[in-house]
Amino acid sequence: MKFRIFLLLLFFLSPPAQAGSELLTLIKMLHANGTVSDEQYQRLLDEIKSGAAQQEQLAQKVAEKEADTIKLKLNKGGLQAKTSDGQFSAKIGGRVQADAAWYNEDSSEMGNGSKIRRARLYISGNMFYDWGYKLQYDFTSTGKAGIKDAYLSYNGLEHISLTGGHFKDPFLLQEQTSSKHTTFMERAMPSAFAADRHLGFMVSSAHKHWTAAVGLFGNKITAKNDGKDHGWGAGGRLTLAPINEKTKLIHVGIAANYRNKGDSESVRFKQQAETNISGVNTVDTGTITGVNQLLKLGAELAAVHGPFSFQSEYLWTQVERESLEDLEFDGWYVQAGYFITGESRKYKKGKFSGIKPKNAFGNNGGYGAWQIAARYSTLDLTDKDINGGEAQAFAVGINWFPVSTLRFSGNYVKVLDVDGGAHDGEEPGLIQIRGQWAF
Amino acid sequence: MKFRIFLLLLFFLSPPAQAGSELLTLIKMLHANGTVSDEQYQRLLDEIKSGAAQQEQLAQKVAEKEADTIKLKLNKGGLQAKTSDGQFSAKIGGRVQADAAWYNEDSSEMGNGSKIRRARLYISGNMFYDWGYKLQYDFTSTGKAGIKDAYLSYNGLEHISLTGGHFKDPFLLQEQTSSKHTTFMERAMPSAFAADRHLGFMVSSAHKHWTAAVGLFGNKITAKNDGKDHGWGAGGRLTLAPINEKTKLIHVGIAANYRNKGDSESVRFKQQAETNISGVNTVDTGTITGVNQLLKLGAELAAVHGPFSFQSEYLWTQVERESLEDLEFDGWYVQAGYFITGESRKYKKGKFSGIKPKNAFGNNGGYGAWQIAARYSTLDLTDKDINGGEAQAFAVGINWFPVSTLRFSGNYVKVLDVDGGAHDGEEPGLIQIRGQWAF
Amino acid sequence: MKFRIFLLLLFFLSPPAQAGSELLTLIKMLHANGTVSDEQYQRLLDEIKSGAAQQEQLAQKVAEKEADTIKLKLNKGGLQAKTSDGQFSAKIGGRVQADAAWYNEDSSEMGNGSKIRRARLYISGNMFYDWGYKLQYDFTSTGKAGIKDAYLSYNGLEHISLTGGHFKDPFLLQEQTSSKHTTFMERAMPSAFAADRHLGFMVSSAHKHWTAAVGLFGNKITAKNDGKDHGWGAGGRLTLAPINEKTKLIHVGIAANYRNKGDSESVRFKQQAETNISGVNTVDTGTITGVNQLLKLGAELAAVHGPFSFQSEYLWTQVERESLEDLEFDGWYVQAGYFITGESRKYKKGKFSGIKPKNAFGNNGGYGAWQIAARYSTLDLTDKDINGGEAQAFAVGINWFPVSTLRFSGNYVKVLDVDGGAHDGEEPGLIQIRGQWAF
Repeated sequence: MKFRIFLLLLFFLSPPAQAGSELLTLIKMLHANGTVSDEQYQRLLDEIKSGAAQQEQLAQKVAEKEADTIKLKLNKGGLQAKTSDGQFSAKIGGRVQADAAWYNEDSSEMGNGSKIRRARLYISGNMFYDWGYKLQYDFTSTGKAGIKDAYLSYNGLEHISLTGGHFKDPFLLQEQTSSKHTTFMERAMPSAFAADRHLGFMVSSAHKHWTAAVGLFGNKITAKNDGKDHGWGAGGRLTLAPINEKTKLIHVGIAANYRNKGDSESVRFKQQAETNISGVNTVDTGTITGVNQLLKLGAELAAVHGPFSFQSEYLWTQVERESLEDLEFDGWYVQAGYFITGESRKYKKGKFSGIKPKNAFGNNGGYGAWQIAARYSTLDLTDKDINGGEAQAFAVGINWFPVSTLRFSGNYVKVLDVDGGAHDGEEPGLIQIRGQWAF
Repeated sequence: MKFRIFLLLLFFLSPPAQAGSELLTLIKMLHANGTVSDEQYQRLLDEIKSGAAQQEQLAQKVAEKEADTIKLKLNKGGLQAKTSDGQFSAKIGGRVQADAAWYNEDSSEMGNGSKIRRARLYISGNMFYDWGYKLQYDFTSTGKAGIKDAYLSYNGLEHISLTGGHFKDPFLLQEQTSSKHTTFMERAMPSAFAADRHLGFMVSSAHKHWTAAVGLFGNKITAKNDGKDHGWGAGGRLTLAPINEKTKLIHVGIAANYRNKGDSESVRFKQQAETNISGVNTVDTGTITGVNQLLKLGAELAAVHGPFSFQSEYLWTQVERESLEDLEFDGWYVQAGYFITGESRKYKKGKFSGIKPKNAFGNNGGYGAWQIAARYSTLDLTDKDINGGEAQAFAVGINWFPVSTLRFSGNYVKVLDVDGGAHDGEEPGLIQIRGQWAF
Repeated sequence: MKFRIFLLLLFFLSPPAQAGSELLTLIKMLHANGTVSDEQYQRLLDEIKSGAAQQEQLAQKVAEKEADTIKLKLNKGGLQAKTSDGQFSAKIGGRVQADAAWYNEDSSEMGNGSKIRRARLYISGNMFYDWGYKLQYDFTSTGKAGIKDAYLSYNGLEHISLTGGHFKDPFLLQEQTSSKHTTFMERAMPSAFAADRHLGFMVSSAHKHWTAAVGLFGNKITAKNDGKDHGWGAGGRLTLAPINEKTKLIHVGIAANYRNKGDSESVRFKQQAETNISGVNTVDTGTITGVNQLLKLGAELAAVHGPFSFQSEYLWTQVERESLEDLEFDGWYVQAGYFITGESRKYKKGKFSGIKPKNAFGNNGGYGAWQIAARYSTLDLTDKDINGGEAQAFAVGINWFPVSTLRFSGNYVKVLDVDGGAHDGEEPGLIQIRGQWAF
């Protein structure tokens, strides 16, 4: 679609080479020879000049009309279209993750199997320069539960972005980072405290060395229209990146998330063993009733140094109940990854994004990108009268990115100990694999 | 993608300016000077002529091949592609409506909250000139219920269009008008009598001053395959627009809709207070059993005069029952809107469509389009043994269209009185807001 | 998007016609006349040469940049985009099938009606040359059940294709052939033994005269995460086409499909009367419990000779039970079709694909393609303690393809006899019609 440039090149280079130089040279020679008189010479020069002016005008017109042109891209896999002036764009993208898992069960049956973990399509883009939109659906879910992002944003203010609709609360680094780009197949155990998506409104600001976001949130998209008040929430996240270079990063973040439960006064925290096929929750508070409000706090630390990456978070949750004592649960994890093939984990606007292999698989004997990783995580869901259990898990993983849009992962997870809850004393292990295409 | 024109311009303008005029002038001069002999002159003229003929041939070829070209458009937000000859087209579009509502409850709890009201994507277009198609899905629904339009149409006959598949029965102006373009966030109370979509076949004709449509309809798309006969229906609508200019309209319409209930002999009419988040039905007949057939009649009146618009409908429904007496319910509404910023409500083929702000927000200090509106509506669902209740509602609204693809609405609705039914004597009020992107 | 060719044509044809031939002729004349000296003549020739060289360089650049260009196509209805170098492509396509059926019931009520049989959209394409992907969803289903194809394939090996994700087991010619392209609206009765789609991995090889595929399969996509092991399967299919020309084909195939039931030990075979609206299963084993494993075998025979096509399959299924005797069920069908308008059924990679009418409807009085067909099929679901019933059905059909993307079908099916099962002795008949758009 870069026609404008070539047409203009064609245009401005060709005329001198055609109507221009040789003819002009000949005319000058004939004038010098006296074959062409002074008066004739002047007429010929005028004619050449006016021809060139005409062509310039035409070139201008071509350039103007060209600004209307749509530019198409497929180079990251999804279909992208954009007007040359940036006023409009639309992108169709998606992801499919196909998983299989084998469990080394320990007293409780877990169930080997396979599943489509996520199958999403989205359309996103911008309209009239400043307005962004996105609608993303996950076809592995049913009905409204499948609606992931469904929002509108306004980016016409300097440094400030306004977002309204259905999107993620600004909380938890490993949740902010897309499931396409997490180092392990499943997020670490403390994701039991994830704030998820709500209908809401958010003000955010993203800079090279810091980001800030605060939002006010209403219902979950799956809330029933049952005449009940499903409460409201508020949340904020602040991240600093004192070092943020191409292959070097230090990231720290803090976030808080508050939720008033309204008339729907129950809450439940649960977590599988960093796997999603079994369906067995290793730790699980069960339904906690009579809940007034929730407060969640999180602290984030992450770093990148060349092929090495590090990420850790601590999460704390307080449950305030109507008549019983407050509950407190917490968890944390620490993980490290290393790209054998030398790539660096990419970071943008307070979260991690995807990588591009240095040598794509298949091109001149390239092997794609290879990453190894290890993680330790812990989650404590036991407090007062609630015996949800406490668990630690250790995981190692390997990721192969043959090209930027593909990823194959293998994870081994070992639950080190479950203390309390329905699975007290169990120590299951598991191996799981994933194939992912995403763009 | 308007390259053809520019290439041809380039082509037809450039040669004279290049090979043409100056060289020809020189040759003529040299001929006049006697430097070039008569015979040489003729040879040169012939050569110039044959060169021009070659170029014309080439231009023709370029033009022919160009007719194959796909034209892309993003200027209304959605991605549109069209072959230059109009033989094929495809468009991907959608809408998201995010709502929040606060209720001033009156004895019955209604439940403040927020929701994604609609989240739709569609693909539509035409094939081989005459065949149109559309598939639209609403992701806030589950399974088949989410399929909105799914039809094929044939437009190869003069003035007559044939449509087969799943689409709206031709009934009710406020239903024919897309939810993207209704003046208020929710349709007026008599939408309880909406005929909805069915699988069917329709013959229609649309002209500047009138439209007519008649159709034969089968099952609802959600009908279960339970070995039962789910009945059939028929319907027609006739609209006249004696005045139909850009900013002036008078529209009258009548419509009838018949439904034989087959083996599924129940029906229910219900209506929320022109809101959709609460889930509480202010009036509700409950399930009426032993129903043989339904007949619905509607009368429409609408007008536009510059920024002012008016719309009113009366709906009447008769329920014929197996052994009990026939029931009759009815309702009507009247509404008016005014564009403070001077736009006019757009009308096309017997229904209202979207507007384009005169001064888009953000361009040279534009404010977008602003509209204010008021509506009074009433619905009576009480007759004989059925005590569904009667209600009146008054609503005022404000709409802001910063650009053509966006709309933000605020509505205040006051139920003036509920007479009978489960909410007898209640007079709830509510405020609701919506953000919408649609293309 | 074929601009490169035209620009280059423009380029290489134009210069000689402009700066080139006439001017050169004039210069030569003037040199011959002695008006231009030898030295001047040489300078002029050099200048023309260097101008031509410049233009050639420019043309090369244009050609290089042009290789980046995206090519768009709509000529089969769906939107296709492809990079000029073939590295990336994306296609958006879909199908809608709208059906209606009328039953000549025989003691059991069946329920006339209409439905959207399928409403699918897909996105497919390739990335980085060798990797293919597809995600297809059927909106008439709910949640995961709607996910049809969701896979990734690798085609970088010679003659070998690797596929991983969710796709059809390689079994049964009439299942391998897309529902868009089956001769009758519904597949023949033995489709009760279809192997359906699973999560799995397959190695396949397709050649002009043979295809082979073997795969290992895990869960169905709808398997619940209930801590149970949902078993695994394996299957293979081998097809030979000793004659495979444009209008002549002989196809034979054999296939085997094994399924270990894991912890989910039940299976059920059932079949409607080659219709899908009624929901009444003419033959039905009911749920067979205590099942360890299943083995299915199939033999295929098909032929095309000009407008005539023939297709037949025999299917046999063995059910191995924990404590009871093994069960054996089987079925077969034979069908023939004839294109009155002379088209030939298309065959590719071991299955049938779509046809293109010789004379599209509407173009110069074309009638589209018309096909008539007849089929006899039988299915026996009675063995040992299982009395599912045995049934034969005879069907005739007519298909009209006005253009390649559209199809209208009418089928008459007569169940010749039901022997055993819940519908013992019944002989219902039915008429059903379908409108289909697909691309």
